[in-house]
Amino acid sequence: MSGFLPVDSLDSPRFCGLPTFMRLPQASVEDVLDAAIIGLPCDSGAPYRTGARFGPNAVRSMSVMLRPVNPYRGNLNVFERLRIADAGDASVVPGYMQATMDRIEAAIDSLVRRDILPVGIGGDHSVSLPALRAVARQHGPVALVHFDAHSDTWPGYFGGELYSAGTPFRRAVEEDIVEPEASIQIGMRGSLFRPDDVSQSIDLGYEVITGDAMFDLGMAGTAARVAKRVRARPVYFTFDLDFVDPSCAPGVQTPEAGGPSTRETLTLLRALSAMNVVGADVVETNPLFDGPGQITALLAATVVHEVLSLIAAGRGASSGP
Amino acid sequence: MSGFLPVDSLDSPRFCGLPTFMRLPQASVEDVLDAAIIGLPCDSGAPYRTGARFGPNAVRSMSVMLRPVNPYRGNLNVFERLRIADAGDASVVPGYMQATMDRIEAAIDSLVRRDILPVGIGGDHSVSLPALRAVARQHGPVALVHFDAHSDTWPGYFGGELYSAGTPFRRAVEEDIVEPEASIQIGMRGSLFRPDDVSQSIDLGYEVITGDAMFDLGMAGTAARVAKRVRARPVYFTFDLDFVDPSCAPGVQTPEAGGPSTRETLTLLRALSAMNVVGADVVETNPLFDGPGQITALLAATVVHEVLSLIAAGRGASSGP
Amino acid sequence: MSGFLPVDSLDSPRFCGLPTFMRLPQASVEDVLDAAIIGLPCDSGAPYRTGARFGPNAVRSMSVMLRPVNPYRGNLNVFERLRIADAGDASVVPGYMQATMDRIEAAIDSLVRRDILPVGIGGDHSVSLPALRAVARQHGPVALVHFDAHSDTWPGYFGGELYSAGTPFRRAVEEDIVEPEASIQIGMRGSLFRPDDVSQSIDLGYEVITGDAMFDLGMAGTAARVAKRVRARPVYFTFDLDFVDPSCAPGVQTPEAGGPSTRETLTLLRALSAMNVVGADVVETNPLFDGPGQITALLAATVVHEVLSLIAAGRGASSGP
Amino acid sequence: MSGFLPVDSLDSPRFCGLPTFMRLPQASVEDVLDAAIIGLPCDSGAPYRTGARFGPNAVRSMSVMLRPVNPYRGNLNVFERLRIADAGDASVVPGYMQATMDRIEAAIDSLVRRDILPVGIGGDHSVSLPALRAVARQHGPVALVHFDAHSDTWPGYFGGELYSAGTPFRRAVEEDIVEPEASIQIGMRGSLFRPDDVSQSIDLGYEVITGDAMFDLGMAGTAARVAKRVRARPVYFTFDLDFVDPSCAPGVQTPEAGGPSTRETLTLLRALSAMNVVGADVVETNPLFDGPGQITALLAATVVHEVLSLIAAGRGASSGP
Amino acid sequence: MSGFLPVDSLDSPRFCGLPTFMRLPQASVEDVLDAAIIGLPCDSGAPYRTGARFGPNAVRSMSVMLRPVNPYRGNLNVFERLRIADAGDASVVPGYMQATMDRIEAAIDSLVRRDILPVGIGGDHSVSLPALRAVARQHGPVALVHFDAHSDTWPGYFGGELYSAGTPFRRAVEEDIVEPEASIQIGMRGSLFRPDDVSQSIDLGYEVITGDAMFDLGMAGTAARVAKRVRARPVYFTFDLDFVDPSCAPGVQTPEAGGPSTRETLTLLRALSAMNVVGADVVETNPLFDGPGQITALLAATVVHEVLSLIAAGRGASSGP
Amino acid sequence: MSGFLPVDSLDSPRFCGLPTFMRLPQASVEDVLDAAIIGLPCDSGAPYRTGARFGPNAVRSMSVMLRPVNPYRGNLNVFERLRIADAGDASVVPGYMQATMDRIEAAIDSLVRRDILPVGIGGDHSVSLPALRAVARQHGPVALVHFDAHSDTWPGYFGGELYSAGTPFRRAVEEDIVEPEASIQIGMRGSLFRPDDVSQSIDLGYEVITGDAMFDLGMAGTAARVAKRVRARPVYFTFDLDFVDPSCAPGVQTPEAGGPSTRETLTLLRALSAMNVVGADVVETNPLFDGPGQITALLAATVVHEVLSLIAAGRGASSGP
Repeated sequence: MSGFLPVDSLDSPRFCGLPTFMRLPQASVEDVLDAAIIGLPCDSGAPYRTGARFGPNAVRSMSVMLRPVNPYRGNLNVFERLRIADAGDASVVPGYMQATMDRIEAAIDSLVRRDILPVGIGGDHSVSLPALRAVARQHGPVALVHFDAHSDTWPGYFGGELYSAGTPFRRAVEEDIVEPEASIQIGMRGSLFRPDDVSQSIDLGYEVITGDAMFDLGMAGTAARVAKRVRARPVYFTFDLDFVDPSCAPGVQTPEAGGPSTRETLTLLRALSAMNVVGADVVETNPLFDGPGQITALLAATVVHEVLSLIAAGRGASSGP
Repeated sequence: MSGFLPVDSLDSPRFCGLPTFMRLPQASVEDVLDAAIIGLPCDSGAPYRTGARFGPNAVRSMSVMLRPVNPYRGNLNVFERLRIADAGDASVVPGYMQATMDRIEAAIDSLVRRDILPVGIGGDHSVSLPALRAVARQHGPVALVHFDAHSDTWPGYFGGELYSAGTPFRRAVEEDIVEPEASIQIGMRGSLFRPDDVSQSIDLGYEVITGDAMFDLGMAGTAARVAKRVRARPVYFTFDLDFVDPSCAPGVQTPEAGGPSTRETLTLLRALSAMNVVGADVVETNPLFDGPGQITALLAATVVHEVLSLIAAGRGASSGP
Repeated sequence: MSGFLPVDSLDSPRFCGLPTFMRLPQASVEDVLDAAIIGLPCDSGAPYRTGARFGPNAVRSMSVMLRPVNPYRGNLNVFERLRIADAGDASVVPGYMQATMDRIEAAIDSLVRRDILPVGIGGDHSVSLPALRAVARQHGPVALVHFDAHSDTWPGYFGGELYSAGTPFRRAVEEDIVEPEASIQIGMRGSLFRPDDVSQSIDLGYEVITGDAMFDLGMAGTAARVAKRVRARPVYFTFDLDFVDPSCAPGVQTPEAGGPSTRETLTLLRALSAMNVVGADVVETNPLFDGPGQITALLAATVVHEVLSLIAAGRGASSGP
Repeated sequence: MSGFLPVDSLDSPRFCGLPTFMRLPQASVEDVLDAAIIGLPCDSGAPYRTGARFGPNAVRSMSVMLRPVNPYRGNLNVFERLRIADAGDASVVPGYMQATMDRIEAAIDSLVRRDILPVGIGGDHSVSLPALRAVARQHGPVALVHFDAHSDTWPGYFGGELYSAGTPFRRAVEEDIVEPEASIQIGMRGSLFRPDDVSQSIDLGYEVITGDAMFDLGMAGTAARVAKRVRARPVYFTFDLDFVDPSCAPGVQTPEAGGPSTRETLTLLRALSAMNVVGADVVETNPLFDGPGQITALLAATVVHEVLSLIAAGRGASSGP
Repeated sequence: MSGFLPVDSLDSPRFCGLPTFMRLPQASVEDVLDAAIIGLPCDSGAPYRTGARFGPNAVRSMSVMLRPVNPYRGNLNVFERLRIADAGDASVVPGYMQATMDRIEAAIDSLVRRDILPVGIGGDHSVSLPALRAVARQHGPVALVHFDAHSDTWPGYFGGELYSAGTPFRRAVEEDIVEPEASIQIGMRGSLFRPDDVSQSIDLGYEVITGDAMFDLGMAGTAARVAKRVRARPVYFTFDLDFVDPSCAPGVQTPEAGGPSTRETLTLLRALSAMNVVGADVVETNPLFDGPGQITALLAATVVHEVLSLIAAGRGASSGP
Repeated sequence: MSGFLPVDSLDSPRFCGLPTFMRLPQASVEDVLDAAIIGLPCDSGAPYRTGARFGPNAVRSMSVMLRPVNPYRGNLNVFERLRIADAGDASVVPGYMQATMDRIEAAIDSLVRRDILPVGIGGDHSVSLPALRAVARQHGPVALVHFDAHSDTWPGYFGGELYSAGTPFRRAVEEDIVEPEASIQIGMRGSLFRPDDVSQSIDLGYEVITGDAMFDLGMAGTAARVAKRVRARPVYFTFDLDFVDPSCAPGVQTPEAGGPSTRETLTLLRALSAMNVVGADVVETNPLFDGPGQITALLAATVVHEVLSLIAAGRGASSGP
């Protein structure tokens, strides 16, 4: 159906050509699309390791490894179901959070207004806030499905600055662009600034499944909790690579020892039921800390592919795990 | 018995001297040996990341960490059971697949004809085909025991070229040098080029245990399936490092997120029953993508040690897990 | 209570200032402390990969990621319970094991004599012997709780040299500074020099739980065995990073394929009951082999934090898992 | 004039978007262009270090550092003089030199036939031969201006294979697509296979200026020799990054200690008089050996910019150093 | 005299202890000092490569290589002439240029007000502006002596943002805190955004010696021009590591091919006559791009040592080259 | 004549086989040789960066780039003039300087007694002392020709330990195994511990040409000074890689900014007149700090080749620059 198909790596080697996401066509303004990949190369929101500005292109580079058919969703070829292209990057203004967020919001907005579902590749986690603003303008407050080692709901940083990678999901509640009662955070672990670091999310209305709780529930059980929480609401899906153990995702801003493995992570994502995704991002890939194997970027690309499959599953008849 | 013993790393530090595999003696043409390590430094068959030409020496360098006694096979000291030496590398012709395969076949043939079991260190997976040719000339069509994330049974690449790291096990069936009905492929996972990527192996006659199926069966169950499939036939054992998760083996050509851990992998290998191995290879170690820790090379060396133990187990009385 | 609090990373970014352990104050001689972090930058005892002399500062650099509150010990803030500071490094004499051990023993002794519990950051594993000497002078022979892939109880190296990273826990028994009947070694795995490599520890009186046995027992079961073994005796806790799988700790001297993951490791440490720790070290972090993500150093820092929590748990009323 | 202008890095940060060469527009088939950048990602011709298949995109990534105006050619803005775009990559067939050369020749041919001057980015040096074939079909035998540490005029490799990175400029003479009497090789140095390694080029008709001779002549003197040799003939310009000292270009296939510095190299290139360039390539950038700074890729990009300036100088009125 | 002496690396190995600059004592608020090293870990002003936030500690780590006596200034031991200590880092607010500049200005101000000459270690070049503000408050408009590949006098970036690593020396003129007529910029080279990139500095009143002009003048001649320009005025000295060729300083934000070598750079610095330095910084060291040798950080540390020597030379009787 | 010829890299690719030095045959005890390459993998003498234990094999790995004919010595093929083989490594005892020196002395002695000229590859600079002891036993006190950034004549380190990389050439004078009046040190530069760091060598009787003096003399002039100093005496040649600028040799123990380039260094070595070399070493290559390009190891291999050429020049009729 689509016409928006990846270059076939059985015909032309993966290393040939400019690496768009999965070797998809580049979007032009007149394209009628269902979804678009968009890079959000911001790292001005990073309180610790910087370099996620190079994340989108690093993820694209490794995404050439991926093949179109997803055997974990009934051999779904998402590109036969949906028209998807690579829309390039939003522009940003390094060192200026406000201007950067405005540019990101505008870029996402230009997609959403054309009914193109945005799938962002970060960049640090601050990018989710302007993306949520644009998405909520179209869809109203959304249900957040959030995978992360940290809740990113701190009140502020460094003398009270409001916008950073550690604060977007408090701001989003305050701005009434997520509906916390339909939202869920999964994977929080590690040492805390204050004893109430976890409860601060619960106080905001979020459901929180810590890393330990996730393993107690099992991946299927956790997926069931997500389904129960979000039901049919429009969902914004956000995945921070530090959700995964640093051995599987060394290239992140704030690595946290003791997370799930790559396989456990993919098992969880593949267990998620079809849901009404209206926006998504996969963030905090930092190639400067990833080593020559670039396994974090590969994992990020794989997660994006799973997210695209989840989106397609929510749009079609024959999908589902 | 043997006289072919590794240098003792309690006497001389591991970093002293040219690193042969496990610090074994180098083979000379007149040596009477049971098995030989042979490097197969070809990466002309690699459709994606190249550099496996540096794999054999990288594996040798990390193999100095290994000690001779294997506690997972009844404290077997394989070097007291078998005469093993390091036969150096086959020569290759970069950029010329046919000439390269001829040189590899000749090198393996010169061992096999002297009743020396070849244990190849790759090099990309294309090296298995010439090795199989030489082995099958001596032993007839062999049972293949194949660990990999990918089945490597595609028909051709890039306009129909027949020989590459993605095609050897289709060619081997076509050439009647493996017996697919006695052969088994384990660990396939990840996204697919076409919906029939997995069934193409089954269509050729192979038994396929996907990564998910392997975890469902458990490692002992999987090992039992291998034993049931190959029975007493002569076995060619081939292990592609990308069988393992990229976190445990980042230094490979085509990493595939979501594989077994190093421990799960070794548990499986150690669970294998003694079998009649007549040839083996451990391939696709690429040190250029492995990081300073060189953990892929270490794992490859450890797998070779397990293969040697499996061979010795198949030759002796007291062995077995 | 304490006044010895880490810099708050919500106020000042983690990368600002000289990185002491967890951004703690630096100890001065007149400080009244409960415990002190002390770097032991020796790698003269390393038979294989060298570079652990850069370990203490590498661990400090990554320790800035840690936050003070430990949710796995009842939201314990160890720094509110104990006065802890960073005492800098012991001096060493590269290439001279005896002089190096004397300097380390003196540095630890100066802490122990002031009733300050030493928490060493290595450095190769040879540093444990001089630390044990100083601790035992104050407390008598101690119970050793030892996490490692190797038992480090070989008689000698390279023509009989007595002191190296492979021998401290034989020497400690010979010198009567550990009580092997109250001591336990956990995690031994991999190939062996001689069939009696494991039994040599048992012959010395240690209890040994191999890696396989640990998984059979489970982490809670293993923790119970530790508690049963050490009871109320004064404990010296020593953790070699190669206990963990190389995928999770590539930056070590002698990586051994097939160990527990980071999560399994932390689960075990967090399951340990409060015990009477009188000294501790976390050793063999080698940043030269760790890659840009420095995940080994991060894990080492996290282990130190868990050790501090275990110490605090042993000192207080409300602690424990 | 042109409409083919780089993205302005004062407006949008350099790291935003897919990195085409110097952030130029991508060429489409209908574009009327003066010149095109084309990646030639072949490393099947590499006798030693492989990985140059990743060279074109590595050079593009660093080329974002470049700004359009060249102060060393009279503040020439090449993009105001010529219409230039990035034509992507030729396809290749790894492991098959003949098929690879055919694909490269076809890709260059499709440009040349449309009067678009091809500026190739390698890839190993074997790519020059098919490029020369396509260029000579249009322009007849060309004058070669060749910067390199090695003459690349060996008869054959590895049992007589004719095509590799070490042979193109002998083949080109044999095929009568370069005119050696109008051609010049500059920079040869280092140890030799045979005493006649240098004279073999002279025997073919080339003028050879060794590295030592170049320093004796000085950069202006060397440039004068080039001008005198090529006069008004159509020129194919080829630059191998190993011309430069390994300290300035570590990321190459066959580094040769003792070459000119980056500054000396650029001084020479900037001293070249305007000439009638009809084709060019800059080859042997291998990012796998380049380190995190990617200084070889940056230098390669800078050399390409100088080549574009030289081309523009040859086409315009006001140019020249 | 001073009491502020580096730890002696003949007594205690360089790798022992927290690495302050040159192993100097840490400054406390009550110390009476002549000068202080202060880290300025800001990279929010970086339009391209980020990571200079890790620069100050990287420079400190390599500064342990330095020894106190400078044979190029008459065997001057600067620490016997001046009381110098390491004052730690200014705090910053990542992503917020204005807040960051305020914090840096306050930190420098607290030194300057106590008559302590600030020697900043960057951080990106935006840090010079707040430092100049604090220095000029005490000393009035200063003469700028500026070594750099770029003039950093652009009007604004990315939609007109005023503060970044590319703008401080235009802002400083606008704010009347440097006196351009007494100021000099040295080393500008490489491609330009606009033909007037260089003249924009001249239009502001600066003297500009391009890289080519510097080589024409020679290092002694260039030093003479500096002396002639600044005469006895209070001088702010600023050195951007990208002044040097990328082969000698790969770890920078915006590397520019074709600069002077390390030796040429040090020759120039050592040729500078004693001048009345009242503030200094050495900026743009980015360890993330520097490779394992950390040669950029070593060079930065060496430059700081030369700056300290120049300061001491300006304060004492017996100094001078 | 010789029969000891390198493998021809035009026949078999450089990456095939165990990398002996320049792909030479391995020495066996009964070989009659003129010279032998011997690895001296000691880094116990390193006061700062450790890892030179991996130096000999790193230099061997890069030495495969070298070809046998030296055009800078009249197209000399040293292997046709002299019988040379690779004798493997001396054993060492990490952490025990005395035992290590004994093992090295014995290894060199076993060569020297068989009239085989030893060419050592380090290893840190402490290895020169035991080598000199063995050489002087045969030849009496030798003339030292010493290239280095540091004189390595300090009295002792770290509380007076006598043996380290910083002391061998004081010890050698004290032990009367070098004749300082015939000896010369070249290249000293950088900051000093004490004002008399340089004069300490002169006080011992050495001639010292500092780095600055070397550039004033020019390379030919410096070579002439060497010839004048050593005349016909038996010479021990020692080359520390930190003689060269860190940009050209980042992989060393104690890098010193501001040295000669690779080209300047090779120019000097190639200018040396034939002399009566009786022993040699090339030391301090540390691959852990060398980056993926391994340019330090390549340079070290190139220097060894030049040393072999110098030796051959001293033995033959037709040699000389």
